[in-house]
Amino acid sequence: MTDPSQLDQLCINTLRTLSIDAVQKAKSGHPGTPMGAAPTAYCLWQRFLRSDPEEPNWPNRDRFVLSAGHASALLYSLLYLCGVKAASPSYKESDRLAVTLEDLKTFRQIDSRCTGHPEYGWTSGVETTTGPLGQGAANSVGMAIAERWLAATYNRPGYDLFDYNVYALCSDGDIMEGVCAEAASLAGHLKLSNLCWIYDDNDITIEGSTRLTFTENVAERFSGYGWHVSHVDDANDLDLLTQCYEKFLNTHDGPTLIIVRSHIGYGAPHKHDTKEAHGEPLGDEEVRLAKMAYGWDPDAQFYVPDEVPAHFRDQFGRRGSAARLDWNEQFAAYRQHFPELAEQIDQMQQGDLPGGWDSGLPEFPADAKGMATRESSGKVLNSIAGKIPWLLGGAADLAPSTKTHLSAEPAGEFQAPGQGGDYSGRNLHFGLREHAMCAIASGLSQSKLRPYAASFFIFTDYCRAAVRLCAMMELPVIYIWTHDSISLGEDGPTHQPVEHLASFRAMPGMILIRPADANEVVEAWRAIMPIKNRPVSLVLTRQAVPTLDRSKYAPASGVARGAYVLADAEDQQPDVLLLGTGSEVGLCVTAYEQLKSEGIKARVISMPSWDLFEAQSQAYRDSVLPPRIKARVAVEAASSFGWERYTGCEGARFCLHDFGLSAPAKVVAQHFGFTPENIAAAAREQITKHSSSTSGQRD
Amino acid sequence: MTDPSQLDQLCINTLRTLSIDAVQKAKSGHPGTPMGAAPTAYCLWQRFLRSDPEEPNWPNRDRFVLSAGHASALLYSLLYLCGVKAASPSYKESDRLAVTLEDLKTFRQIDSRCTGHPEYGWTSGVETTTGPLGQGAANSVGMAIAERWLAATYNRPGYDLFDYNVYALCSDGDIMEGVCAEAASLAGHLKLSNLCWIYDDNDITIEGSTRLTFTENVAERFSGYGWHVSHVDDANDLDLLTQCYEKFLNTHDGPTLIIVRSHIGYGAPHKHDTKEAHGEPLGDEEVRLAKMAYGWDPDAQFYVPDEVPAHFRDQFGRRGSAARLDWNEQFAAYRQHFPELAEQIDQMQQGDLPGGWDSGLPEFPADAKGMATRESSGKVLNSIAGKIPWLLGGAADLAPSTKTHLSAEPAGEFQAPGQGGDYSGRNLHFGLREHAMCAIASGLSQSKLRPYAASFFIFTDYCRAAVRLCAMMELPVIYIWTHDSISLGEDGPTHQPVEHLASFRAMPGMILIRPADANEVVEAWRAIMPIKNRPVSLVLTRQAVPTLDRSKYAPASGVARGAYVLADAEDQQPDVLLLGTGSEVGLCVTAYEQLKSEGIKARVISMPSWDLFEAQSQAYRDSVLPPRIKARVAVEAASSFGWERYTGCEGARFCLHDFGLSAPAKVVAQHFGFTPENIAAAAREQITKHSSSTSGQRD
Repeated sequence: MTDPSQLDQLCINTLRTLSIDAVQKAKSGHPGTPMGAAPTAYCLWQRFLRSDPEEPNWPNRDRFVLSAGHASALLYSLLYLCGVKAASPSYKESDRLAVTLEDLKTFRQIDSRCTGHPEYGWTSGVETTTGPLGQGAANSVGMAIAERWLAATYNRPGYDLFDYNVYALCSDGDIMEGVCAEAASLAGHLKLSNLCWIYDDNDITIEGSTRLTFTENVAERFSGYGWHVSHVDDANDLDLLTQCYEKFLNTHDGPTLIIVRSHIGYGAPHKHDTKEAHGEPLGDEEVRLAKMAYGWDPDAQFYVPDEVPAHFRDQFGRRGSAARLDWNEQFAAYRQHFPELAEQIDQMQQGDLPGGWDSGLPEFPADAKGMATRESSGKVLNSIAGKIPWLLGGAADLAPSTKTHLSAEPAGEFQAPGQGGDYSGRNLHFGLREHAMCAIASGLSQSKLRPYAASFFIFTDYCRAAVRLCAMMELPVIYIWTHDSISLGEDGPTHQPVEHLASFRAMPGMILIRPADANEVVEAWRAIMPIKNRPVSLVLTRQAVPTLDRSKYAPASGVARGAYVLADAEDQQPDVLLLGTGSEVGLCVTAYEQLKSEGIKARVISMPSWDLFEAQSQAYRDSVLPPRIKARVAVEAASSFGWERYTGCEGARFCLHDFGLSAPAKVVAQHFGFTPENIAAAAREQITKHSSSTSGQRD
Repeated sequence: MTDPSQLDQLCINTLRTLSIDAVQKAKSGHPGTPMGAAPTAYCLWQRFLRSDPEEPNWPNRDRFVLSAGHASALLYSLLYLCGVKAASPSYKESDRLAVTLEDLKTFRQIDSRCTGHPEYGWTSGVETTTGPLGQGAANSVGMAIAERWLAATYNRPGYDLFDYNVYALCSDGDIMEGVCAEAASLAGHLKLSNLCWIYDDNDITIEGSTRLTFTENVAERFSGYGWHVSHVDDANDLDLLTQCYEKFLNTHDGPTLIIVRSHIGYGAPHKHDTKEAHGEPLGDEEVRLAKMAYGWDPDAQFYVPDEVPAHFRDQFGRRGSAARLDWNEQFAAYRQHFPELAEQIDQMQQGDLPGGWDSGLPEFPADAKGMATRESSGKVLNSIAGKIPWLLGGAADLAPSTKTHLSAEPAGEFQAPGQGGDYSGRNLHFGLREHAMCAIASGLSQSKLRPYAASFFIFTDYCRAAVRLCAMMELPVIYIWTHDSISLGEDGPTHQPVEHLASFRAMPGMILIRPADANEVVEAWRAIMPIKNRPVSLVLTRQAVPTLDRSKYAPASGVARGAYVLADAEDQQPDVLLLGTGSEVGLCVTAYEQLKSEGIKARVISMPSWDLFEAQSQAYRDSVLPPRIKARVAVEAASSFGWERYTGCEGARFCLHDFGLSAPAKVVAQHFGFTPENIAAAAREQITKHSSSTSGQRD
């Protein structure tokens, strides 16, 4: 092993001591990994990572993902020492550092940019929100796919606009998580040679030694995935690290895993190699001892030798700035030659849509037999994809069922060249890997592409962790969830969602839309596409639903407001409200017609999106759901959980209270009572109940 | 390759044609895998699987898990041809087959035992509910762990009461799913040599060839996990299959993966090796052609040659019956020598608890500083574990944080012998593998152990698919979810659950309990342990909460009813109701005291479990939440979603509407307004609002 030069060592120890001090001052955090992995990260950032501190959002920057998000203090220390500038909208000041020394001193305190785990959008230079293990690594696969796609789509001879690499620093925990395994398998299949995972193999997790649970041969596993694996026996060996990073850069037929053996809590005499170093501050005395071991002044806190930022400026900074300035020139020339492509890149980077993106959207004529909403959605998706070249995505092995394959002409399949497609393909194939799919979709979105990801609604249970982080990061990923209720029929309760609508409605940031018919699907997509900072779950039927006669009922444009009056009493003074979403709206309309024929005044309210509805004015909401009308029937083939919000406790809820069953769709619906007759009966009952209650007894 | 004998071939083709006919008649289902994998399963069942058709629940039977649940028709055909008897409580008739020919003819129809995917508890002989891929394989690891534990705990020299093997038939999809990867890694670590996965490698998934997404070297990956891997190049080669199964039986230092190359839709001239054979009926004409290819009468439907059931009786049946009768004799002798152990086995098999299991439960004195509920739960768990030898479990690398380590003396660590524990250990270590942990817990429960599984509440997002299946299977798994709110503090929004309470409350079958203090924790465990057919999520704080003075407030025994009046107006005629759960109950009590000092009559209702509360009589529920009192304030540091059920729309809900933030717990709580002062203010406001509204205006 070669010792790092003195200056390198000074930088590495500054990373360590800043991390230690931040954690110690916060009395909370994870000092051990920053101490052990500092040289690994230092070597990468100083010698290889290509990113301009002046412009942390430069599109062709290399990405560094700290999948081991608990080591956040290391990342913050790097951002501070590299002088990375603030560039996210969340910063009020225009010219400050992404992370200041003051931020480090207020690690894990309110308003600090140094949050407990790295938060995308809040701290510039943080490429993705991490902490829940496996997620960052899986995001990084999305970023690597994005680079391959951007390069294949926009590079031209002489113009290598996109040629960046994606690095992820992973912990033992990341490598153990299933989402990471799925993503690694796919990355190997796709031969993503621009992807490098660095596995900080420190042998320690919260319960103790990894010998407790994790004795597999990681190198052999990754080799099975088609990865190139190299080993660094000592994280302090900058020469060997350098060789491995260089080897990665010279590898062109698959992703690389570098397994770096490190020591958690490196330098702390009593906590080195212990689980205590993982998630607890070292304690004042151990901090002193560790600093002494580094040759540091044991009493200095947050001490940064002058040479250190200067050295980062000299290497990391200079290299990145030069690369970006080069790229700017290149892009200016490219713009001359390929103005349309350059404009696409601009729009993509801004999250804007091309003009006319929604021209030519289909309209669907009234049709009692109708069409499954997954079917109409497939048509709309294909129409839009024809106008937005960077709209791309796929399903977790369910494209034929979710109707999410782009058949529009220049779409193609995303595959390693020669494997039945190429890297410009817009149809992604995720395999049976729902969790990785969603994490990858976030990585695509972070790379400014507009991704969609599709599966059956039930399988959201496999990927909620990634979906939640997407909502937290405010990424406009479009999720297409089909087979949305018991009416998928024969596949039975294992495939029939019940609690999933409620589960998604309860998730902050997520917009859920469950359209009622083909034209609501069109309007749903019209609402979705301009959204810049929230994910959307588009929830669709397997089975055909009638296409409503919009000359008779209100136009589907009401979808944009989340809920709208679809059919009403002639005098707009209904006696009862029928509230439904998705496939149950058709039942409400039939019930409404039945009631009407009896002279009962009902109103049907289609409520495709509670989230959009709740963003409307109180006046609008009251106009749809007049507070004086207490006779209400909600109809949804899902858990009733949450519906009291709209029906009140005294209203009726036609919902499910148990798992579904295996039988043909119509038999299932019948079994659980989803019929217009039952809805009409409930409506009559509600009218009776509430007319008597207003005349005196309320309970 | 050797052709199977004529009789074997007849049996195999009967499995195929029964499956084909069942799917075709249902016009729904998955014929291709049964056609391709029939010889693989046949060879195993006929020549190796040790299970008595007369007694499908015999404790020492080999387990067969159809992880490829979509191939259900194959399993049903096997159960039918083997003459497996009905033995689940769900069967009304006492003496019928688990699966009748009539069931096969009504495959995927309402009330048939042949549901779309195999359903545990509904169809005898089905060892676990499968369909969502990866789950069955992961369950099987739990079953294999259970056997190792039972053997290590109860076998005695001369008495091998437990020595069964666990087989799982997996599809490409299973092998791709992350949950399966996690489970495989752990199974390798634990050297579960009683576990054999059979990978039906048919190269086809729903989107087409596995070449689209799945080109990894599975054998190399599993070898990296520490598995023994063998290959069968042609599923029709019964000799080679037999050799591989024998090799598994002779392997004693790790699990076995047998990779069997098969052809989906085998025998169907146009659908062989196509994705169409996967999930669609073949069509009448193709059915005829396939039957002809098998040398079958193309017009015969559901045809079973007489020799076939006879042959299954001769081999599968005879072997299993003999083994069980042997075992019965052995167990009778064992009972003589080890009456206490035999009684334990009896109790375990019945799901009963030993007498006095709850004697010696701790009581916690009032304490304003209090204790985290994870902490008190750890004490209670350890107390109970001392009384119930088959209560065991662990965490996904978070035992020190979830306080779920059993320190009680004979607990020990579950590990392969010589690896720091042995197979009689009751502390399981799952690693960072939440999803596999939960699926494994189901497998342990199916093996009649009483398992708990623990992690942070946020990480339920990683394992919902397994948890949901557990609820569907009505297994009494105990989930211990700690760090249950924003009050975990510095780790920040990535670790702070918000929508998770709502998500679990909406899940059918799940009982969620969020106790308010140490004594509610005791009562929660007292309520949990006797539950035989539902999983429970015990949701616990990271931070200390006051231990309430039960001489002043109502006893914690109210937990058993889900919600109870904790503190009330002296005349029991409160003007406002304060509803809280978990850590927020303490806030409500402080607010109550404040209001009381102002002469305002409030009632505090602790609502640890909505699920238990909703099972109470209307009279009890009304006594707790008198319908006439509309002034209500709910307090819960989580999404408000669903709370309208108890507050009405006009009540106040002190909840969260966004993700949390990284800061010390108290700062976070303050930031989001969770203070007694705010609650008291809301209570006053509610009283004003509702006293004016009852005097006339309601809206």
